[in-house]
Amino acid sequence: MVTTAEKRHIVFIGAGNLATRLAVAWQQAGHDIRQVYSRTEASAQALASRLGCAATTRTEELCRDADTYLFAVSDKALEPLIDEVPAGDTALYLHTAGSMPMELLHKRFRQYGVCYPLQTLSKERTLSFDDIPLFIEGSSPEVTTDIRLLAQSISRQVMEATSEQRRYLHLAAVFACNFPNHLYAIAAEVMKKADLPFNLLLPLIGETAAKIKALAPIDAQTGPAVRFDDNVMQKQIALLDDPDEKEIYRLLSRHIHLFATTRQQHHHE
Amino acid sequence: MVTTAEKRHIVFIGAGNLATRLAVAWQQAGHDIRQVYSRTEASAQALASRLGCAATTRTEELCRDADTYLFAVSDKALEPLIDEVPAGDTALYLHTAGSMPMELLHKRFRQYGVCYPLQTLSKERTLSFDDIPLFIEGSSPEVTTDIRLLAQSISRQVMEATSEQRRYLHLAAVFACNFPNHLYAIAAEVMKKADLPFNLLLPLIGETAAKIKALAPIDAQTGPAVRFDDNVMQKQIALLDDPDEKEIYRLLSRHIHLFATTRQQHHHE
Repeated sequence: MVTTAEKRHIVFIGAGNLATRLAVAWQQAGHDIRQVYSRTEASAQALASRLGCAATTRTEELCRDADTYLFAVSDKALEPLIDEVPAGDTALYLHTAGSMPMELLHKRFRQYGVCYPLQTLSKERTLSFDDIPLFIEGSSPEVTTDIRLLAQSISRQVMEATSEQRRYLHLAAVFACNFPNHLYAIAAEVMKKADLPFNLLLPLIGETAAKIKALAPIDAQTGPAVRFDDNVMQKQIALLDDPDEKEIYRLLSRHIHLFATTRQQHHHE
Repeated sequence: MVTTAEKRHIVFIGAGNLATRLAVAWQQAGHDIRQVYSRTEASAQALASRLGCAATTRTEELCRDADTYLFAVSDKALEPLIDEVPAGDTALYLHTAGSMPMELLHKRFRQYGVCYPLQTLSKERTLSFDDIPLFIEGSSPEVTTDIRLLAQSISRQVMEATSEQRRYLHLAAVFACNFPNHLYAIAAEVMKKADLPFNLLLPLIGETAAKIKALAPIDAQTGPAVRFDDNVMQKQIALLDDPDEKEIYRLLSRHIHLFATTRQQHHHE
């Protein structure tokens, strides 16, 4: 739990997955979540009632006496909201977006920064923040120190990253999480077609994710594409009905082949 | 450990990842691995010396007194080898290929079947077979019983599957394992470009794989594509240099969007 001196009074701007998980974690760490803003009444109310704080759908009604204003909204919603939120001289303004530069906040605020969690967060899935890497950036060394304290109150993995590095982190996260998750969704459809339960794939999915703790992904690869087993690949493409899925199969297989023939040679140089 | 009555005398035809892991597991379970065949001298020797058994690169030299002959080779190598291996009346002939029908073995052998492990196996990564699902199929109920005993000597997850189901299992495995692993390899390159260590992604990769134990993959999805955050997607595509990677990004993002707008509606019907 944070000390009274460390305790922050936070307004959440946004009530989606990330806002929900962060607000719950900071509240549990002892911070005071003052208010939740969301454009959507139901979202604002849902998160506010979970936290026992006030909700609003109007930026004019935002509390002015908080010391921290945290933007946790989609990237396209961020810029218009920055223009609407009342600016205070002593408060800290933070955003949480991977692909948005910190300096977006400069035009309206004196003290500002970023706290970007590298994790996939869903409203209804409780997850300890302890091991979630939080990448922070501050508008001055003092501000960075404040953000670090706030971040360390929920995570043991707090690191500084520039806006430029954060863009790459966000891109890597899409390849490491969102895209693999979509391939799991396609695999689920394939299993359904054969009347087999999806959970038969769980040991395979778990091992694929665990293996790369010990082996570089390129060295961990197995399966028909890396063996150039064209016979199998053609038969597998024929089993897919969706032309987009056939194309995903072809493109990824070709690229696996490319990595195996070019990138591995680079390793051996 | 198997009893003397259950102990089988096995010849391995193939010395790759799958052959290595299966041979080690069966030997540890108390079976007798008689001989290893591989077209490649070095591979045959490497596995045979690990097991302390004989090696050969010539099918004419295969032991004739074993009771089990196990084909663990790439799908394209399987058919020609079936024609070369000496056929005995009482022995059991098994293949391990996901996409090959059991009946391939019919033309040469009397007792035959399949034992297909649904897992990604690398030569140098030791993995307990206990929880690896093994899908079996036999040419008769008696043969199926024999294969079941052999499979259960290393795994608690032994199930029957038809050749048709196995084709879908293999296809689902490519989407659940080989393709996600390749996306990890791309993510590793992206991290390198930003001078960030790959292991920062491990909590994210682990949680993505763990989340789907509780949520269907389609419900677990997060990130710019499912939010239709076109602004972020365009910026991320611009960060990629490789035109194939740009295309993989576009195609998967479009397909995530498609699933979110069509498949989820089906769920709610």
